This record gives sequence, C-alpha cells and structure tokens, in this order.
Amino acid sequence: MEKLTGTAVVAHGGGPTAVINASLAGVIEERRRHGEITALYGARHGIQGVLEEDFIDLDREDPDLVELIAHTPGSALGSCRYKVKEPDYERILEVFRAHNVRYFFYTGGNDSMDTTLKVARLARERGYELRAVGIPKTIDNDLAETDHCPGFGSAAWFYACALRDIGADLRELPRRVTVVEVMGRNAGWLVAATALARRDPDDPPQLIYLPERPLSGDKLLADVEAVYRRLGYAVVAVCEGQRDEKGEPFGADLIAADGFAHELAGNLAHALSQLIARRLKLRARSEKPGLLGRTSAAFISESDQREARMCGREAVRTALEGATETMVTLVREPGSEYGVRTGLVELERVANIERRFPPEWIHPEGNDVLAPFLDYARPLTGPLLPRARLRGVPVPRRLA
Amino acid sequence: MEKLTGTAVVAHGGGPTAVINASLAGVIEERRRHGEITALYGARHGIQGVLEEDFIDLDREDPDLVELIAHTPGSALGSCRYKVKEPDYERILEVFRAHNVRYFFYTGGNDSMDTTLKVARLARERGYELRAVGIPKTIDNDLAETDHCPGFGSAAWFYACALRDIGADLRELPRRVTVVEVMGRNAGWLVAATALARRDPDDPPQLIYLPERPLSGDKLLADVEAVYRRLGYAVVAVCEGQRDEKGEPFGADLIAADGFAHELAGNLAHALSQLIARRLKLRARSEKPGLLGRTSAAFISESDQREARMCGREAVRTALEGATETMVTLVREPGSEYGVRTGLVELERVANIERRFPPEWIHPEGNDVLAPFLDYARPLTGPLLPRARLRGVPVPRRLA
Repeated sequence: MEKLTGTAVVAHGGGPTAVINASLAGVIEERRRHGEITALYGARHGIQGVLEEDFIDLDREDPDLVELIAHTPGSALGSCRYKVKEPDYERILEVFRAHNVRYFFYTGGNDSMDTTLKVARLARERGYELRAVGIPKTIDNDLAETDHCPGFGSAAWFYACALRDIGADLRELPRRVTVVEVMGRNAGWLVAATALARRDPDDPPQLIYLPERPLSGDKLLADVEAVYRRLGYAVVAVCEGQRDEKGEPFGADLIAADGFAHELAGNLAHALSQLIARRLKLRARSEKPGLLGRTSAAFISESDQREARMCGREAVRTALEGATETMVTLVREPGSEYGVRTGLVELERVANIERRFPPEWIHPEGNDVLAPFLDYARPLTGPLLPRARLRGVPVPRRLA
Repeated sequence: MEKLTGTAVVAHGGGPTAVINASLAGVIEERRRHGEITALYGARHGIQGVLEEDFIDLDREDPDLVELIAHTPGSALGSCRYKVKEPDYERILEVFRAHNVRYFFYTGGNDSMDTTLKVARLARERGYELRAVGIPKTIDNDLAETDHCPGFGSAAWFYACALRDIGADLRELPRRVTVVEVMGRNAGWLVAATALARRDPDDPPQLIYLPERPLSGDKLLADVEAVYRRLGYAVVAVCEGQRDEKGEPFGADLIAADGFAHELAGNLAHALSQLIARRLKLRARSEKPGLLGRTSAAFISESDQREARMCGREAVRTALEGATETMVTLVREPGSEYGVRTGLVELERVANIERRFPPEWIHPEGNDVLAPFLDYARPLTGPLLPRARLRGVPVPRRLA
C-alpha cells in the first residue's frame, strides 16, 4: 500500500461516554509514531465542527494533559447530534481538501458510522484520496459486528451499582416499589446489565424488562404484585424505550386510561410508578439517573477504558495500512480468561444497523435475563463495592 | 450519677444514609467498654421493631463484620417511616420493661427525635428509669442545634459530583437544558451543595433554587433563557420541595395551565423541563437521581463517616454519664482548620423542628447560593474527581 501523507481529523458523534476520551488519547498516541500524518486536528462538536471548519490543533496539546484526558469521562472535543444532510457532504469534502485532510476518524454509534461511510464514498466518487475509519462508541452496545462497544462497560457498571444501592435502600426501608429508568433507546443491553447487581436470586432488581420483548400492562402489574407479596418490596428496571404489544411506547394507552397525561419521553419510570400506585395501591416511586449513567467520573471501567484506547490506536494503524470505509471492532478471544483483540469490519455492515439484545438471553417470562448474558457482561464492568450485612441473631420474644 | 444497669436498644428511623451504619458501629464499639450495659439489641426496622419486639442481639456480631458494616451505606438494622401513635408509647414501655431496657439510642431526624423524647417522657411519668439519647442523622441537614447532620456530607458530595458530571455532558453536547431534581423536602441544604460542582463562575449548575425562597414560573423561565443565551446551554438544580409564591408546591398552576397533568410528587424536574421546552422552545430534559443521592456506595465522605461514628460513641458515653432526653450534636471548632467536637442538646429544642437554609446565604436573585455556604459545606464532603480539559488551540480557517 502506497503511503498517503496529509492531515488527520478526529471527531466525536452522539452522546458522550465515560471512555470516549480514551479513544481520542489512543488516536493522539498512535499518530505520534507515524510520519505520514503531518497534522492532527480535532473537530469541535463532531461533524458540525468539520462543516464549520472549527478545528483545534491536537499537536499543541501536552502529552501529560492528554494522559489526564484519557482518564476523564465525557467528550473533550465536544460532540453533536446534528443529522447530516445530503448537501453537507460536499461541504465536508471541501473543508477536507482545504486542509489536505487524508484521514478521518469518527468515534460514534451507528448513525456516526453512516456519516463516515457517506463521506468516504463521496471522496471516492470525486477521486479524492481519503481514508475514513470508524471508532466504535456507544453506551447502548447496539453496534453490529463487534463483541461489545466501548462505553458500554462503564455505563453497565454504573447501572449495576445504582440498582444495587437503590435496591438496598428499598430492602432496608421496605413496603415500597420503585421503577428505575435505564438508558438504551431501542436496545436492552444496559437494562439487562442491572442484573449484575444481584448476589442472591431474590436480590434487586427483581424485574428487568427489555425493549426487545413487548410488555403488557397486566403482565407488569402481575409481576410487581407477585414480587411484592413474596418479599415486601419490589425493584423494577425498565428501559426508556420499552414497547408494548402493539409496538408503541410502553404504557401510552394504560396511562391515558388511568386519567393522567402521557409524557413518556423522559418520564416512563414515573408514569409506571403512578400506575403501580393506583392499580395495586402500593407505595411506589421512581428514579431516573439519566445522563449520570454515561458521564459519572466514579464509574469508569478499567477494561472499557483500556479497550477504548486500543480502538483509537488501531484506527490510526489500520488507516495507515490502507483501510477505509471500515470500523474497528472488538473480538473476544475464546477461552475462560477474558481477553479481546481488535478486528475490522466494513462500514456498510454497521451503518444505521441496530444490534438488539439476543432473544436467547431473555428469560421466557420476559422479565429477566439469563446467565450467559451475565458471563458476557461481567468482565466489561468494574467490581461491585461490598455491602456488608449483619448476622442478625434474633432475641427471643418475652411478650405475647 | 448513679450507675444504671440494663439492656440498651439502638434503632434507625427514616431514610437510610451513607453513614448511618457508622453511627451504629460507634454505639457497638463504645458499649464494649462499659459494663453497665448488659446486652445490646438492635431493633429491626426502627421503632416498628420495638413495637413488635423484633430485636437482634448485637453482641453476637463479629467485631470484624461490624467494622465492614461501619463502611457500608444504608441501614444494616433496617428502618421505617412508621408514624408513632399515642397508644404505641405504652407498648414501647411494656417491651422495654420486659427486656429491662434502660438505654435507648434512636438514630434519625426531627421526627425520630420527637419519638425519642416522647418515649423518655412517658418513662419518666411512669417512674421507669430510662435514658434516651438521640443520634442525629439526615441527608436533609435540617436538624436544629447542630452545625450539621451526619449523612449530609456524603449526600452533598454525591450531588456536587452528579451536577459536575451532568453539567459536563451538557457543555460538551450543547443546545440543551436540563433540570436536576435534588432531595431535601422543605430544606435547601442539599440543592445548595450542588454549587460545589463549580470551579469557574459559569460552570454548571448555573441556576440553583431553594425551597426557602419562593419562585415564580416567569422568574424561572427568564433565568433559564438568560443563561441559555449566554452559554448555549443551561443546567438547573431544583429541590423536590420547591414552593411557589403562594407557598404551594412549585409549578402546580403553571403546569396545569400548560395542559398536562400535575403529578408533582416525584415529578418536579420532568414537569419543569416540559415547561421550559414548551414556553422557551428549547430542547429540555430532566434527571432524578432519587435514592442514589443517599445510598451510593461510591460517595461516602470520610469526614461524614468519622463524625457519624463519633456521634454513636458519644451517645453511649453521655447516657452512661446520666444524660437523657438529649441529642448528640456536632460543634464546629473555631479557626481556619476544619474540626468538630460533639455537644449535647435537649431533645425538646430539636424534636419536630426543621432548620431551614439561612437566608443570608441565598443570592439576592434567589437563584444561587453565596460563598459562605461553600466554606461551610466543602469540608463535609469529599474531593471532586478531576475532569481535564484540552488546551484547544484553534486551527486558522482556510475557507470563507
């Protein structure tokens, strides 16, 4: 493969994660080892920064600071949710030409991968030599063709710890139900990870619902009632994108029928807690950690951070070897010890495709996940802080 | 003071905190040093455990396990929100007599202090010798006569870190507003602590509202709009118990007028985000960490834990010296170095009294707190994890 000399641009797309900066550090670090990349720019706020020619010079950043950035959650470059329109692609190419950009590294989810692919294709059509490589990133874990996505492990760890802590509160001050809303749009990976909170089978969360499995209101209420009767409290984990049997956002009809307005966007857990309170006459509440799930500085999984950085380095390496229209993947090594290596996949097998949670890992009752998922997810997260419990030897009663 | 020999009972009332178990460990630890306490019982689920004669024998707990419990958030004994009724007090006394209980340590807030006082008074009226001492505990920090309350520092730390992390997400992926709901019922101490998230004056949260200062909808909307225009995003911290100018739960009329149902209990931040979205036409969302704020194993402030334990030890010591109908307090030592010692206050100066946030620490605009509060609160919390930021040297533009 012929050497291609020019500027490289790195950008972040979509929601920040706890380790997207580790991927950035990987790009910066690897680029230093290769002369073909004559300058490394960071686009401010993702593809919007490219469109607006808003770049920062990453060669002017101190290596020690880059090392700190590698351990800082969130997007140091800034990100965006801008939907790229057809005419924008010509502008992107114009900006790339103006700065002799020959390498483009876009860190994002399936939407960003689609953008990366379209930029690369247009460059090819126009005869402009550009190597565009995607770096996977999404807490939702819904990118195809990779074992898992950088960002997921840290968010999964956050939610496992959150459900463990919230669950302990419910157990200790019982006679309550809570519904915890978990991120994940259309994919159940993150809500499934709340199962890592348990040590014993009855530990919270006792009920976990995934958007891959339609749910009815009657089923939810029956499940909650059964758990509450057995244990005296119940903790429910529900994905923000849960669907009902008609494929509609879960709860829309039920909630409307119950006489209060339906504002599911951002309000699912609260609406469900109200439903449980009204129908089952139980004390119910809701928690919505929201953005904390992807941005908490206290929950950066070590393996997630290490792998995110690997992906950044590998993107540079593979582009220098000639790769384009591809995304770096994580490939799990076979065997009992957890290990991963990087791989490469064509962007057209990833762009705009959502990888849903596997049906064979969902409990037949549709309200829990199965052990193989726990084996899959555990090595991606961090340790659960110990919560000691008293032995609790009862004192014999002396009164009637 | 004559020696009083008999059983001691310790119990937890109200919501668990990150350090209530540290107070329990303090009681267990101090009791071992004194022969007058012939047995130490823990009441399961607070005063309900007393009423139901549901005790565990804390002398059967291994000291190493107690040490682990001291570092575990939440209530190892279990807690309750049971409202004690008049006839219950006779029953409490009956149970105490049956087990020769002569010491009663109740760890809780102003409601639990009221219970402690009433039990002690009834015992005195009946000529039954009992020493009842309260151990302060509340994340709300609203107990009178103490510099601060065990539990507050850890929760304050959680919220400071949460607002810092959520704020970074908003800054990095801008053009959004978020409203974060903070615990605290009628007292603004916790929502005020979110100000600790800032390093620079424009850092999030840019707006902090306290229930001590009535708020109008127009003021909120004007504040949000001004911040958004200046910075391109806005982060609002609001107390779950915020009041409007009529003393009603904030937003009730506004929200109803806006055409969606009013379910303020547990839904304030979401309702306000909807209001902002509709009136200001901005992209707005909400976060509600909820119970995580008091139970997160990742946010146990060292000073909070140490002081909670001190309070537990002091309660035993002071009761053995004859104290009753009192609560242990924390007294801040004068001087620039932070330090506290314990004090003692009569329960009748604490029971059922809410200490509100001092008006002189509220910004005249009513949307922020002032520096003296930060000096007060900072030593009670833990360190804010560093979030490194790029130098960000711009690349000169080459296109029009």
